[in-house]
Amino acid sequence: MSGSKPALLPSARLAANRPDVWTFINQTAAQCKVPPVSLSQGFFNYNPPQFILDAAKRAIDDVSCNQYQHTRGRLNLRKQLSKTYSPLYNRELDPESQILVTTGANEGFLSAFAAFLNPGDEVIVMEPFFDQYISNITMYGGVPVYVPIIPPAAGSERPVSASEWKLDMQRLRAAITSKTRMLVINTPHNPLGKVFSREELLEIADVVLENNLVVVSDEVYERLTYVDEFPRLATLRPELFKHVIAVGSAGKTFGVTGWRIGWLIGDAHLIKYCSAAHTRICFATNGPMQQAIADSLAVADQYNYFSEYVDSYKKRFRVLADVFDELGLPYSQPEGTYYTMVNFSKVKVPEDYPVPDAIKDRPRDFKIALWLMKEIGIATIPPTEFFTDEDAHIADTYLRFAFCKTFDELEEGARRLRKLKEYM
Amino acid sequence: MSGSKPALLPSARLAANRPDVWTFINQTAAQCKVPPVSLSQGFFNYNPPQFILDAAKRAIDDVSCNQYQHTRGRLNLRKQLSKTYSPLYNRELDPESQILVTTGANEGFLSAFAAFLNPGDEVIVMEPFFDQYISNITMYGGVPVYVPIIPPAAGSERPVSASEWKLDMQRLRAAITSKTRMLVINTPHNPLGKVFSREELLEIADVVLENNLVVVSDEVYERLTYVDEFPRLATLRPELFKHVIAVGSAGKTFGVTGWRIGWLIGDAHLIKYCSAAHTRICFATNGPMQQAIADSLAVADQYNYFSEYVDSYKKRFRVLADVFDELGLPYSQPEGTYYTMVNFSKVKVPEDYPVPDAIKDRPRDFKIALWLMKEIGIATIPPTEFFTDEDAHIADTYLRFAFCKTFDELEEGARRLRKLKEYM
Ligand SMILES: Cc1ncc(COP(=O)(O)O)c(C=O)c1O
Ligand SMILES: Cc1ncc(COP(=O)(O)O)c(C=O)c1O
Repeated sequence: MSGSKPALLPSARLAANRPDVWTFINQTAAQCKVPPVSLSQGFFNYNPPQFILDAAKRAIDDVSCNQYQHTRGRLNLRKQLSKTYSPLYNRELDPESQILVTTGANEGFLSAFAAFLNPGDEVIVMEPFFDQYISNITMYGGVPVYVPIIPPAAGSERPVSASEWKLDMQRLRAAITSKTRMLVINTPHNPLGKVFSREELLEIADVVLENNLVVVSDEVYERLTYVDEFPRLATLRPELFKHVIAVGSAGKTFGVTGWRIGWLIGDAHLIKYCSAAHTRICFATNGPMQQAIADSLAVADQYNYFSEYVDSYKKRFRVLADVFDELGLPYSQPEGTYYTMVNFSKVKVPEDYPVPDAIKDRPRDFKIALWLMKEIGIATIPPTEFFTDEDAHIADTYLRFAFCKTFDELEEGARRLRKLKEYM
Repeated sequence: MSGSKPALLPSARLAANRPDVWTFINQTAAQCKVPPVSLSQGFFNYNPPQFILDAAKRAIDDVSCNQYQHTRGRLNLRKQLSKTYSPLYNRELDPESQILVTTGANEGFLSAFAAFLNPGDEVIVMEPFFDQYISNITMYGGVPVYVPIIPPAAGSERPVSASEWKLDMQRLRAAITSKTRMLVINTPHNPLGKVFSREELLEIADVVLENNLVVVSDEVYERLTYVDEFPRLATLRPELFKHVIAVGSAGKTFGVTGWRIGWLIGDAHLIKYCSAAHTRICFATNGPMQQAIADSLAVADQYNYFSEYVDSYKKRFRVLADVFDELGLPYSQPEGTYYTMVNFSKVKVPEDYPVPDAIKDRPRDFKIALWLMKEIGIATIPPTEFFTDEDAHIADTYLRFAFCKTFDELEEGARRLRKLKEYM
C-alpha cells in the first residue's frame, strides 16, 4: 500500500515559496566583515518604559494570569480596550462581543481570513503589502488580487510626503469581481509611512459598501502618527462599522513585539466568527502579557507615554533625514510608522557589482540593498519583496529604512550613510 | 452587484458546530445557587513553584526577550529542549532542525496539520479525542476518521486500571484507506489517563510504517505519569523517527497553561514544514515565557520539581479515589494525566430529572453531569463530547473528573461526593 502513498510530502499550501527577504538580509549581514547597522527589521533594540515591564512582573504573581484565559481574551484587557477605543470610535464598544484579543496582530488577521474566506474567494491587497497577508490568505484557499500604491513622480527628485503615494483607484475598481470577498488596508502604512486620508478612505469605502466586502484594516501603527488626525475607516460612515475588522498590536503600541498580543475590533457579527476561528487556531492568548497590556493602557496617559513615544520617533527620524537632506537623497517623509522609503536613483551603484545567485533574478532594489549593506554597512529592506513581479518596477529604486533603533545606532548609521557622497 | 454577493457570512469551515461542552458546563455552573466544585476543566487553580515565576520576571528585564523571537523559537529554549530530550530519545536532537517552539501544544499540532494535509486527506483520530484535533484537522480540509478506545467490561463493576481501555486495533486497520495521511495519538491520554504500552505502540507503528503515515503524538502529559515507563513512539524503532511529530506543552509540564508555550520534536524533514506553517500562523512565540521555560527546564531537577509534581498528583488523586472506594463507585486508575474516568452506572440518577433543551438530544452522561452539578455540587465533563454520535454509547455512563485542583477544593469535592451514598 505504501507504494501508492505520497512520501511524507508537505501540503500544497506550503509549496512554491521563494526564499524570503528576511533570510537573505540576515544571511548577507552575517557574512559582512563589519556588522552592518541594522535599519532593516521593524523591531526595537531597547526595552519599553519601566511601568510596562513592572506591569508584566506583577501579572506573573497573579494565579489567574498564569492559567488558560478566556478564548476571547482576558476580560480585564477587553474592558480596558473598550475604555481606550470607545472614545476613538464615538460609540460604546462592547467588551463581550465587539473586541477579540489575539496572539499578536498577525494571528488576528489570520483569524479574520479563516473566518470569512472560502477557497477561491478573492481578497484585494494593496502593494506594497505586509508579507504575512499573502501566506495567511492563501493558507485558507483565498486568492490575493493586487492593487498598487503609486509613488509621486517627484519621488526620485526631492523629498516628498508619504501622503503623495496614491492608491490606484482605477485599478481597485477594475479588480473587483463576483468573487471579491475581502479587502485589506494598512494605515499607517508599512513600508510607506502613509496615513490614508479621510477622502481616500471614503473612496475605498464606496467600493467596500457597493460590493459588500469584509475589510481587514491593519492599524497596528495607529499610535505612531506625525499628523493631526488618524482617520479610522470603521468610523467614517455609520454603515462601515458592520464591514470593518480593525487590527491592533500591543507589540507596536508598547514596543514589545515579542509579547504577541493583538486585538480585533468590529461589529459583533464580524468578531463572533473571528473568535470562532481564533479558538481553533490557538485557543487563547498568553495571560501575563494580556494583563500587563491592560495595566499599561490604563496608565499610559499618566506617564505621557504616547506623546513621548511619538516625539522620540520624530527625533529618531531626524537623525536619518538630516543626512538624506545633506546628501540630497530623496525620501518619503512619514506621516506614521517607523519606516521611510528612500529613493536611490541618484546613487551610482556600480553596474557590475557582483550579486549572489539567490538574488540574480530579483529587481534592482535587491542589488542596491546588497551593495549598501556590504559597502556602506547599512542593512535595509528592498521593498519589491512586497510587490508582485508585474508591479515590482513601481518601487525598484527605493529601499525601506526602519528607524525603531537606539540613537547610538541611528547616529552610527548616519555616519556611514555620509559615505554615499562619493557615489552621487 | 452587492445583491449577488453573500451577505457577510462566515466561511464554511466554521459552520455546523454544536454548542461545545465547556460553554454548557460553565453556563450551568453559573446558574447553580451554591457554586459547584470545579473538577471539570484541565487547568490549575494555583501557581507553579516560585523558581518558575522568578525565571519569568528575570526574562521581562531582558531586552532580547521582549522583541520578536526566531520563528522556530528562542535559541536558548531550543538548546535546552535538546538537552532535556536528547537522553529521552537516545539521540542528539538538533536545536536548529529537529525542534520547533510553538504557541502552546495546540498551535503545535495545528501547524503539523497545516503542514501535511491537503483537502480530502484522512486523519485517524482515536475516541475519546481532545476536541481541538477535530476543528484543527477540518480547518485545513482534512477528514477525521475515528477509531474508539474501548473500556473493559468490568469498568462498570469495579475500579480498573486505565491501561485496560484498549484501542480497537481491528477498526484501526479497517479505517485505513488510500487517502489516510496522518494519525493522531495522545499518550498519556486525556481523558482516559491511559499510557500506551510499548506493545500497543508497536502494533500502531506497524500500521504507520505500512501506510507511510505522519503521526502527531500528543505527549503533553509526559511528565505526569504514575507508571515506571513512558514509552515514546518515535523511539521504539529507528524508522519511526521519520514519521512522528511529538508534541510537548510547557503549560502542562510546569502548570502554567496560560503561558502558551509548546514544542514539536521530530525529524528535520517533518519539522521543516511544521515550521513553515507555524511562521504563517503566528510568526513567532512570546519571548519572556520562552526564556522562563528554558530556565525552568534547566533547574527543574535541582528543585526535584518533576518528582514532587508527580507525588502531589498521586496525593490529589487519592483524595477523590478514597471516596470513590468508600462509595463503591468504579473508576479508572490513571497511569498518567490529572484525569480519571468514573463510571456512574451504579448511581440512581432520577429518570425524570429535568434537562434543558441544549442537552435534550445528548447522551446520558450529559444528564448525569447536569444532575451531579446541580444536586451534588460537582462540575465534571461528560466524555461523549469527545466521541462521534455513533460511538458515544461506549462512554455514556462515564464522567471525567480533573484533579489538578487545590487540596482544599478536592476535599470539599470529596465531602460533597459522599452525598452520592443516598443514590446508590
Ligand atoms: C503592517 C503590519 N501589520 C502587522 C504586523 C505584525 O504585528 P504583530 O507583531 O502584533 O503580530 C506588522 C509587523 O511588522 C506590520 O508591519
Ligand atoms: C491532550 C491535550 N493536548 C493538548 C492540550 C493543550 O495544550 P496547550 O495548552 O499547551 O496548548 C491539552 C489541554 O488540555 C490536552 O489535554
